[in-house]
Amino acid sequence: MGTNTMTYFEQNRQNYLEGLKTWLRIPSISTLPENKPDIRRAAEFARDELRAAGLETDLLEAEGRNPLVYAEWLGVPGKPTLLFYGHYDVQPPDPLEEWKSPPFEPEVRNDNLYARGSSDDKGQTYILIKAVEGLLKTGGKLPCNVKFILEGEEEVGGEHLEAYVASKPPRLKADAAIICDTEMFAPELPTICVGLRGLVYTEVHVQGPDHDLHSGVYGGAAPNPIMAIAEILTALKGRDGHIHIPGFYNRVRPPSLEESEAWSRLPFYPEEYRKQEVGSTELTGEPGYTVFERTWARPTFEVHGIRGGFTGEGAKTVIPARAVAKVSMRLVADQPPDEAFEQFKAAVAQATPAGVIAEVKLIHGAAPSLVNPNNDYVRAAAVAMEQIFGNKTVYIRSGGSIPIVGSFDRELGMPSVLMGFGLPDDNLHSPNEKFYLPNFYRGIEAVARFIELVGA
Amino acid sequence: MGTNTMTYFEQNRQNYLEGLKTWLRIPSISTLPENKPDIRRAAEFARDELRAAGLETDLLEAEGRNPLVYAEWLGVPGKPTLLFYGHYDVQPPDPLEEWKSPPFEPEVRNDNLYARGSSDDKGQTYILIKAVEGLLKTGGKLPCNVKFILEGEEEVGGEHLEAYVASKPPRLKADAAIICDTEMFAPELPTICVGLRGLVYTEVHVQGPDHDLHSGVYGGAAPNPIMAIAEILTALKGRDGHIHIPGFYNRVRPPSLEESEAWSRLPFYPEEYRKQEVGSTELTGEPGYTVFERTWARPTFEVHGIRGGFTGEGAKTVIPARAVAKVSMRLVADQPPDEAFEQFKAAVAQATPAGVIAEVKLIHGAAPSLVNPNNDYVRAAAVAMEQIFGNKTVYIRSGGSIPIVGSFDRELGMPSVLMGFGLPDDNLHSPNEKFYLPNFYRGIEAVARFIELVGA
Repeated sequence: MGTNTMTYFEQNRQNYLEGLKTWLRIPSISTLPENKPDIRRAAEFARDELRAAGLETDLLEAEGRNPLVYAEWLGVPGKPTLLFYGHYDVQPPDPLEEWKSPPFEPEVRNDNLYARGSSDDKGQTYILIKAVEGLLKTGGKLPCNVKFILEGEEEVGGEHLEAYVASKPPRLKADAAIICDTEMFAPELPTICVGLRGLVYTEVHVQGPDHDLHSGVYGGAAPNPIMAIAEILTALKGRDGHIHIPGFYNRVRPPSLEESEAWSRLPFYPEEYRKQEVGSTELTGEPGYTVFERTWARPTFEVHGIRGGFTGEGAKTVIPARAVAKVSMRLVADQPPDEAFEQFKAAVAQATPAGVIAEVKLIHGAAPSLVNPNNDYVRAAAVAMEQIFGNKTVYIRSGGSIPIVGSFDRELGMPSVLMGFGLPDDNLHSPNEKFYLPNFYRGIEAVARFIELVGA
Repeated sequence: MGTNTMTYFEQNRQNYLEGLKTWLRIPSISTLPENKPDIRRAAEFARDELRAAGLETDLLEAEGRNPLVYAEWLGVPGKPTLLFYGHYDVQPPDPLEEWKSPPFEPEVRNDNLYARGSSDDKGQTYILIKAVEGLLKTGGKLPCNVKFILEGEEEVGGEHLEAYVASKPPRLKADAAIICDTEMFAPELPTICVGLRGLVYTEVHVQGPDHDLHSGVYGGAAPNPIMAIAEILTALKGRDGHIHIPGFYNRVRPPSLEESEAWSRLPFYPEEYRKQEVGSTELTGEPGYTVFERTWARPTFEVHGIRGGFTGEGAKTVIPARAVAKVSMRLVADQPPDEAFEQFKAAVAQATPAGVIAEVKLIHGAAPSLVNPNNDYVRAAAVAMEQIFGNKTVYIRSGGSIPIVGSFDRELGMPSVLMGFGLPDDNLHSPNEKFYLPNFYRGIEAVARFIELVGA
């Protein structure tokens, strides 16, 4: 990278921080209907930033959906085109009382920027915008063509972008998608993610009596829907972490020997991971699998929330009529989400005890994906990151889901490069989400370097 | 009963209804701290009614506790003394949206008075007050001495009255306690309850990770506290309704052959009970036991409420740090609540899966009780009810708990007579609680007749 570009990036760090803070102050929570106006403000903020950087921009609207932010700079025909992806929506911040500083009042402490969305994904998306802006401001042009597509529904299933991608729009045509929504395996260790889990997110609604009952009068003869949910959950997953859904593991593809060996060389300290990341008395999971295998290469069954009966202060002696649980399964290649959902539904029906009615609703699904680490764009990203961070790039997977990776592949035949600058202790989806600022600044430089390598 | 007394009761029915409605409009919910002022207003209402009836009254106060309403008329020394018991606090009304008319705006529909507390227990307590008032207004005196003790914490464990009774106050000395907080087995069928279940009400708090985790990143290796609660609940109670708490059934006393036979003669239609009372697709419970045995003579294990993780609209992919369940056990003679709680605590510790910490809190406990159906006061009550209702009195038990019955027996050596005028479909503790008005009016007459028989 030219000296003046590098100097420009270094001199603008304070501006980058202030710009990102402004974006983070907008509580663009896609899960909550009351935040719809914030969703729009956050989209417009991104659109305005891209326009100011020198790109043509557009907000793509659809009835009842959160806008997609589109931008393009296509000044070097014949050169490759990169499609940069990010999302401007965030997870809800609750439980609020556990935040040390308010989730939408960004605060820097010890080189970390604390706010909901700081890492997932406004901070990382801002890296992409500022990398392109820096190259354009200092060079007047880019070495390759770039497009941006930013969505506002990533945390709620990404339906708008999924539908748009499924329409195979020429506008999204590119040689590779660059996704900045993953993490570095460790500080200073440049990392590319080549595998993601899929997801089937469901709700299980159980009805017992048709109205709440006095537990003294009817206890012993009436079915209890909370107990029924407990029975269903424990029937579907054993205490050893193994999932008892018939057929569920049939299509699970184990990692290659080469990949497993590479994982075993990663700097990983289970006891530190347990204490500092998970914070529990023990790690759990399927016997016979390593932590990487459990979180990257094996499917999961998790209950995210449960509600039923009286949960206020004190005692109410009631057998409730209804209870509901939110249950998801993370999927690994090659488990199709629709098949997994059908298997789950059948298993719930099988496990439902007498006297209650269980109904299963699909909230959303996403396919798992694996990226070939040998494609040119992945290799260019690995080199760019090595040059900026000064260490050899490692290849990992993520236990999370980025459904759009599968769609880009399936619908547009486009490989994805997952360059991530988050860190494992960023508290994604949790109180005190943070972004490590040195990664923020070097991320901008690494993405700019990657664009140069692609255009070279 | 004299004709003028009977006429007085008949002529005042509208006044009784209006008086009760006024009391029911006060939302004296003891579970919720914000209703403290309503608790006081409901106590003062009862005190004022008793004073207007011609009794000496007092409000007994204790720091942080709901007042006890005391009243007495001791005009016939040498005659027996009856202690009338009732409670002026009510259960919370939620779920509010299921009420056809608002819970604290009493409404008469088809001979039923709908309101929270209409049956449990303001309506039944009002019967006692009005019976005494009618006898005093028409006769100028009573045939026996009466005392009243009304509490405002029955729905939250009854600590104030329990502590007061434990102090063995001379004021409460009486020959028998009359408790009007149970139900008639069927319309027109006078009923005395001779057995009550006890209760141990607990909370189970489970901590997994020390903060909420991203279920994609950590799912597979991190413990899930909601799943842990499901595992604990299902370890402690089987799908067949049998409770797997070591030692729990050791002291359970089966009903006598005579009592079992009497139960088998009660007019009971399981299919109707299932449809009209429970409203579930099937009845459940321990194999080999009848519905009466399951609800009257066997202990239970029920979960009343559960809360954990994200339960808002949409999807949040979180492994929560904490979850909590409210769990109770109904006890039968001779299970002591403190022993049952210790057994439960040990069983939870035993059933807690790896990686989580479970903490068990006792909310309150109450001993089960059995009354000897052959004592004079029970017999007088049976005769009084037969005379007013025109049918032979039956003896039943209740699956619910009235802890004070055990305390009156243990602390004051006083038997309790449980004359109830509720009906099985009164929706106690549920939306659309009601009181059948013919029972309300005849209940007043039956209690007056009982007082006459005791004083004869």
